[in-house]
Amino acid sequence: MADKDKLVPRSEDFNEWYNTVVLKADMADYGPVRGTMIVKPYGWALWENMQQALDRRFKATGVQNAGFPMFIPMSFLEKEARHVEGFAPELAVVTHGGGQELAEPLVVRPTSETIIGHAYANWIQSYRDLPVLINLWNSVVRWELRTKLFLRTLEFYWQEGHSAHATAVEADARARLMLDVYTDFAINEAAIPVIPGEKSALERFAGADQTWTIEAMMGDGKALQSGTSHNLGQNFAKAFDIQYLDPGNQLQHCWTTSWGLSTRFVGAVVMAHGDDNGLVLPPRLAPYQVVLVPIYKKDAEKTAVLAATQRIAQELTDAAVRVKVDDRDNVTPGYKFNDWELRGVPVRLEIGPRDLEKNSVALARRDVPGREGKQFVSQDGLVQTVQALLTDIQANLLAKATQFRDANTHDVTSYDAFKEAVQTGFARVWWAGDDADELKVKEETKATIRCFPVDQPDGRGVCFYTGKAAARIAIFGRSY
Amino acid sequence: MADKDKLVPRSEDFNEWYNTVVLKADMADYGPVRGTMIVKPYGWALWENMQQALDRRFKATGVQNAGFPMFIPMSFLEKEARHVEGFAPELAVVTHGGGQELAEPLVVRPTSETIIGHAYANWIQSYRDLPVLINLWNSVVRWELRTKLFLRTLEFYWQEGHSAHATAVEADARARLMLDVYTDFAINEAAIPVIPGEKSALERFAGADQTWTIEAMMGDGKALQSGTSHNLGQNFAKAFDIQYLDPGNQLQHCWTTSWGLSTRFVGAVVMAHGDDNGLVLPPRLAPYQVVLVPIYKKDAEKTAVLAATQRIAQELTDAAVRVKVDDRDNVTPGYKFNDWELRGVPVRLEIGPRDLEKNSVALARRDVPGREGKQFVSQDGLVQTVQALLTDIQANLLAKATQFRDANTHDVTSYDAFKEAVQTGFARVWWAGDDADELKVKEETKATIRCFPVDQPDGRGVCFYTGKAAARIAIFGRSY
Repeated sequence: MADKDKLVPRSEDFNEWYNTVVLKADMADYGPVRGTMIVKPYGWALWENMQQALDRRFKATGVQNAGFPMFIPMSFLEKEARHVEGFAPELAVVTHGGGQELAEPLVVRPTSETIIGHAYANWIQSYRDLPVLINLWNSVVRWELRTKLFLRTLEFYWQEGHSAHATAVEADARARLMLDVYTDFAINEAAIPVIPGEKSALERFAGADQTWTIEAMMGDGKALQSGTSHNLGQNFAKAFDIQYLDPGNQLQHCWTTSWGLSTRFVGAVVMAHGDDNGLVLPPRLAPYQVVLVPIYKKDAEKTAVLAATQRIAQELTDAAVRVKVDDRDNVTPGYKFNDWELRGVPVRLEIGPRDLEKNSVALARRDVPGREGKQFVSQDGLVQTVQALLTDIQANLLAKATQFRDANTHDVTSYDAFKEAVQTGFARVWWAGDDADELKVKEETKATIRCFPVDQPDGRGVCFYTGKAAARIAIFGRSY
Repeated sequence: MADKDKLVPRSEDFNEWYNTVVLKADMADYGPVRGTMIVKPYGWALWENMQQALDRRFKATGVQNAGFPMFIPMSFLEKEARHVEGFAPELAVVTHGGGQELAEPLVVRPTSETIIGHAYANWIQSYRDLPVLINLWNSVVRWELRTKLFLRTLEFYWQEGHSAHATAVEADARARLMLDVYTDFAINEAAIPVIPGEKSALERFAGADQTWTIEAMMGDGKALQSGTSHNLGQNFAKAFDIQYLDPGNQLQHCWTTSWGLSTRFVGAVVMAHGDDNGLVLPPRLAPYQVVLVPIYKKDAEKTAVLAATQRIAQELTDAAVRVKVDDRDNVTPGYKFNDWELRGVPVRLEIGPRDLEKNSVALARRDVPGREGKQFVSQDGLVQTVQALLTDIQANLLAKATQFRDANTHDVTSYDAFKEAVQTGFARVWWAGDDADELKVKEETKATIRCFPVDQPDGRGVCFYTGKAAARIAIFGRSY
């Protein structure tokens, strides 16, 4: 429920603001087991809209969904050396089932590359069976010690895509294609101007040859890794014997990829667009795009106002606008305004007795606070007016977030300037350091290479840290 | 792949036929851990269509989706005595996490009433918070010893709905409403004429006061419990202190319900409609409603035939018909026919050079085998022709299944006639026995009370088993 007074200003304590908003907006709650999360209906509806936007895009590239078991034999993980090294410390282990101790302990999947590898090895015989393009919508478990709702929880919801190909070129193309899908989704659905790029070797997925990422800047200037796509080379194909007969009847190992985006992205939306009054949701993903608040004092007014509210709600619903009518009679309109502001509904539509007389309604846009964001419009053509407003809000959120990102991304050439830049945002630098240099910079500044952006300038430059000639620029930032 | 010759006739060995069809139609595969299942894309697409058909219905009754953790403290299950008694033997237990032994073992949810109870107790304060209507789409784990793909697996996919109400009357109404939703779904989407009814006390959900069920007759005359809805009374509310302040400011315990339908229903569709040639899918749920098979011999024909195939496929897609173009060039049309018959696609559309000349196509309906089910139709108005055919197939499947069910349901009054009836189908009988009688009948005949149907005759009768006066009839059958 809206209890606006207790919301800490975002600028004062971003972390506390985030936790409070997520709880007060009824997006999520803590589960009874430490580090687990209950996603409440409002948060889940947002996630469902994300799922649909992604699923549509996946299917357009030929991907099909499937369901794989959550239990994986411990021995599977041990087949890929770097993979088990990366995930072993975070595993949840089932040792008993049906009242008996198990002969081999089972791992609750932290990710499914190994069990996928096992299945693909059985399913794939010939080049005609390729590519295999499968996606899973599920939850995975990683025993995290420091947790935060949506951003890092012991169990989280995500999709994990897994493909197998005949050639290295095709696997590379698929890994990049899914990076493009994530980028398009983030920008055009969530209004988050992510930076697509490649991870450094140190930040790669355990078992990948190459990891692609979309990196988003949050409202405090920190980075959030928001989706990743991995070129797994032949690592898992060799560990699990995923082989096929090529047209010349020769046995070849496949090339595989995997790619995932999780409920962490819900956190990205909160932190990229939210303000001191709470959530600000992009219209394309918002569970409710318009909240209708009927305003009346006398009983005589009530009937007519509620009837008009319902009529308008129906018109909007018929036009596929997602609406909520707030007809609670135990709280004031002012309370409702605060409540739906906190919950980030893009447009508030108010209607009262005078509106009935004047054939008007009031529309307040969430992205522009106060009087400036409020207008009185005719009920004639209201559906079109609302749709245009939603489109405008979506565009405005992207523009604001892009402006913020660019204003807080600095091209720096000295370490001092670098240190200052990563206090409040991203540093974009020429980089020629090795793993040790990267770790040193992290130790000294808490900033890591978020990615080598896909979009690179021409030519070469000088590494700000090593002074060596550098072939590409990197984005550094502190991250969640 | 279609390897029709190896399909055991359904009449010869129903069990073997089922296992073979599920595997050959590429619906599912065995997971590496005993009793687990991989749902392959074709099976998952069928499940997705079921999910959408159900989700739409749930939301229309005010239900919202959410996500709850899979891990439940063992102590939670122990709070409701009958619940833990029912589920304890089937639990998977996590004893280690992040490399440490856990202080309290965690159960992987077998169902979520307990963790829901814990959360609802925190969330619900006042009568104004009621009802709470939440549904989860997830998977649950029950350590089954004898497993069978889709019907009984160690982990299975389902939805579980959980509601909390202010009064017993409202909880009863919700439990029955969800029974109605399941019945409507089964009949109108899956073309399975289920019998809605109440479970006997012996067959109730562990912790419920009343369990409602939809019971379906499979192609071998056995029953499949296909969805259940439980009135939990105040059992969980009292175990977890789910309380609310009523309008008079008195603290009251809530009344709760739960209701679930699982991937078991995929098995129901296979076993209710399948025939010796494989699956027969109801058009409303089929992943592909129409498969298009281009037929050509010479290269000169190929281009024109493929172009026409693509054009027709696009026209059908634009009309929201789900199509698959089978343009494989390494198998014959005959192989394709068998393959898609096995996979149960409702309509096969063939198009060859002569069809181009005559502006026609051939349509073969899966539910009517051979020549009788094949017709040549004009390409003019083809979309409408196909849509009408799909509607007809859907209706025909329901009619056939209803006829089969009714032909194999016998009103019997003697135990001898009862024993004969349950060999091949259902026995519908007046029943006045107690739990001991029911167990005795089960022991002697393997038949159990599937349900006391909602639809009861007027008046009273004589119990076929005890000879006592009976107030209601029961459906008995052998079950999966």
